[in-house]
Amino acid sequence: MAFQKPTGTQDILPGAVENWQFVEEKARDLSRRFNYKEIRTPIFEQTELFERGVGETTDIVEKEMYTFRDKGDRSMTLRPEGTAGVVRSYVENKLYGEPDTCKLYYIGPMFRYERPQAGRQRQFHQFGVEAFGAVDPSIDAEVIGLGYQFCREVGLQDVKVEINSVGNPAVRAAYRQTLLDFLNPMREELCKDCQSRIDRNPLRVLDCKVDQARFVNAPSILDSLDEECATHFAKVKQHLTAMGVEYTINHRLVRGLDYYTHTAFEYKAQGIGAIDTIGGGGRYNGLVGEIGGPDQPGVGLGIGLERISLILEKQGIAVPQPKPLDVYLIALGEKAEDEVTKQLHILRTNGIIAEKDYQGRKMKAQMKSADRMQARYTGIIGDDELERGEIALKSMADGVQRMVPLERLAEELK
Amino acid sequence: MAFQKPTGTQDILPGAVENWQFVEEKARDLSRRFNYKEIRTPIFEQTELFERGVGETTDIVEKEMYTFRDKGDRSMTLRPEGTAGVVRSYVENKLYGEPDTCKLYYIGPMFRYERPQAGRQRQFHQFGVEAFGAVDPSIDAEVIGLGYQFCREVGLQDVKVEINSVGNPAVRAAYRQTLLDFLNPMREELCKDCQSRIDRNPLRVLDCKVDQARFVNAPSILDSLDEECATHFAKVKQHLTAMGVEYTINHRLVRGLDYYTHTAFEYKAQGIGAIDTIGGGGRYNGLVGEIGGPDQPGVGLGIGLERISLILEKQGIAVPQPKPLDVYLIALGEKAEDEVTKQLHILRTNGIIAEKDYQGRKMKAQMKSADRMQARYTGIIGDDELERGEIALKSMADGVQRMVPLERLAEELK
Repeated sequence: MAFQKPTGTQDILPGAVENWQFVEEKARDLSRRFNYKEIRTPIFEQTELFERGVGETTDIVEKEMYTFRDKGDRSMTLRPEGTAGVVRSYVENKLYGEPDTCKLYYIGPMFRYERPQAGRQRQFHQFGVEAFGAVDPSIDAEVIGLGYQFCREVGLQDVKVEINSVGNPAVRAAYRQTLLDFLNPMREELCKDCQSRIDRNPLRVLDCKVDQARFVNAPSILDSLDEECATHFAKVKQHLTAMGVEYTINHRLVRGLDYYTHTAFEYKAQGIGAIDTIGGGGRYNGLVGEIGGPDQPGVGLGIGLERISLILEKQGIAVPQPKPLDVYLIALGEKAEDEVTKQLHILRTNGIIAEKDYQGRKMKAQMKSADRMQARYTGIIGDDELERGEIALKSMADGVQRMVPLERLAEELK
Repeated sequence: MAFQKPTGTQDILPGAVENWQFVEEKARDLSRRFNYKEIRTPIFEQTELFERGVGETTDIVEKEMYTFRDKGDRSMTLRPEGTAGVVRSYVENKLYGEPDTCKLYYIGPMFRYERPQAGRQRQFHQFGVEAFGAVDPSIDAEVIGLGYQFCREVGLQDVKVEINSVGNPAVRAAYRQTLLDFLNPMREELCKDCQSRIDRNPLRVLDCKVDQARFVNAPSILDSLDEECATHFAKVKQHLTAMGVEYTINHRLVRGLDYYTHTAFEYKAQGIGAIDTIGGGGRYNGLVGEIGGPDQPGVGLGIGLERISLILEKQGIAVPQPKPLDVYLIALGEKAEDEVTKQLHILRTNGIIAEKDYQGRKMKAQMKSADRMQARYTGIIGDDELERGEIALKSMADGVQRMVPLERLAEELK
């Protein structure tokens, strides 16, 4: 029988994996410049962590989690997002005891049982950052700017930043009532999803794609902000302006859970059809407390790497390719084979990208193979060369061949 | 309530993660030089793939797999090792259609429900390579040499390479009988595990730690090799010698499953107590066919990264640390804050590692923070500097301070 990869998962093969390496290396390099350090948390966690940290009434927790019982009969879940695990780790390892703002980033696989579509996989990958311990609006702006810069540096065109404030719990409670006053008269006309959301989480109703047109005159949460929230939001905008990061305000951009506070933001880009959000984030001053930690503020972002890849592909954006082969060695005769084995290993352990044939092919087929691999040079060792301790080194660019002493080969190729 | 990471998993935090980054970057760099390309396969696969590809009678499949039913009621398993998924992907994506030897590497998490101990986690990480399509013994030697070079380049001392030949299925069937003739008379005296293994898989009996002393005079599989197998093994040794890779022959080193053929090898190192094997591999000419592909040979290795980390730590081996901060910016006064926000973003988007305070701390505390982060420079902007468009740049090494025009700051720090 032939096996297939599970639905909604991908094999990333040579030819495509180089894009992923490039994008991840950018994320690492950018995080370094912004002084975020990497954290790696387990692929699965106790199920309850996500019920608490993502929210029991969310689609993710209600419908999409890969939950299973381990052999010790504990309920475990493949992480559906990155923040909950990082917050758990921040609390468990008492990172809040450090004197400086705790700035972390992660890159890795996440899992949601969804209907697969372009840019949406059951195993998907995110780059995310989380900053703990600072209420300063400059760090909200920094996080927004980091994600925006990431999109630009990987080569995306026309990425738009949308921002909003979702206030604090008191502001949101007041706004919730204002919004219900607006929504209740049209309750019967709304779609089923909205009707079920309206009591549980009316802020999410504004997100609805179906009923969008009805909400043109919906009240804005920005009109409900108290002074603290308004000041915070104004400062975030001021910092973004100082940084030269353009943004638009979208007062319907919400993060529905109670521990989200103040800043919410999203990145949008063309090129992946219906889904145009490639990432987003916000401030979550209540989350660390919610999952059992001290009352420490946080702000973070997550960007979907499948979506980035897809846009790079659709927009035909060329990604820098890794260096091809430095040299392809060819042995003529059995004696020379040992020498090729030896030289190959010496070259590779000295920083040279080197290859040979493993198929017992004729010289002509080996030259073709060197060509396919875009080798800069081929090096031929026959009985004559072996006797003189030399190799015939041929530049594949101009066809020029010269004899090089074997002991100078590595140096010559550097 | 406070949450904890699942038993047998780890948080890899800043301070430790830099070792992992170094080890993985080495694996990538080395693979590049040996011309292996990265492949990424899903974290979980159909359970049957592992039953087939790892072997139904193995401890892994019988006792240690994280198996669960997904929401579509399919049996899935978190990958317990790397080879089966790569072979599945090689077959499904028809990589055997390429003209050159298919040389792949992977780095990533694997999962086995075992009793956690030093160097053995339930979520662990492996670096592995697989080469498909070549029967040439030089590639067996190349794979062995690559793993050995990896151990050396990450800094491990005293790594030993052990090799053996497990022949082909016909050789193994004959040896099995020879071995049974040796083992049967002592059957009753052997430990329970051995008694249960003796009929299913007598070759694995020689692995037993308990009964080791009884096997001193056990027949060697090397005495049973036919001419083809003996020649292959001799050639592997010849190539290793040409490469300068030292090895010892351990005729009890076996890989028990039927699709393993010819070369088997392991890397051993001091420093992790009872477990001294840090990785190994071998040739598996029957595996691709076993999981539904064409009759293509393969050879590969896997190295446990937890074990590498543990030895680096125990042997006190210093790993190169990433560059610390280039500059820490300090604003004196509210006007200067916007300028710091602006300059910080300019620096970071121009390749400089730059940081500031987010806690509203006094200047002295900020200087301390810069010190903790090992900043090369601090840059102070106050009202006077702002007016003149300058920054006071202080070298933390010698305390020397000088005024630098803001527009030349990035250049100055490069």
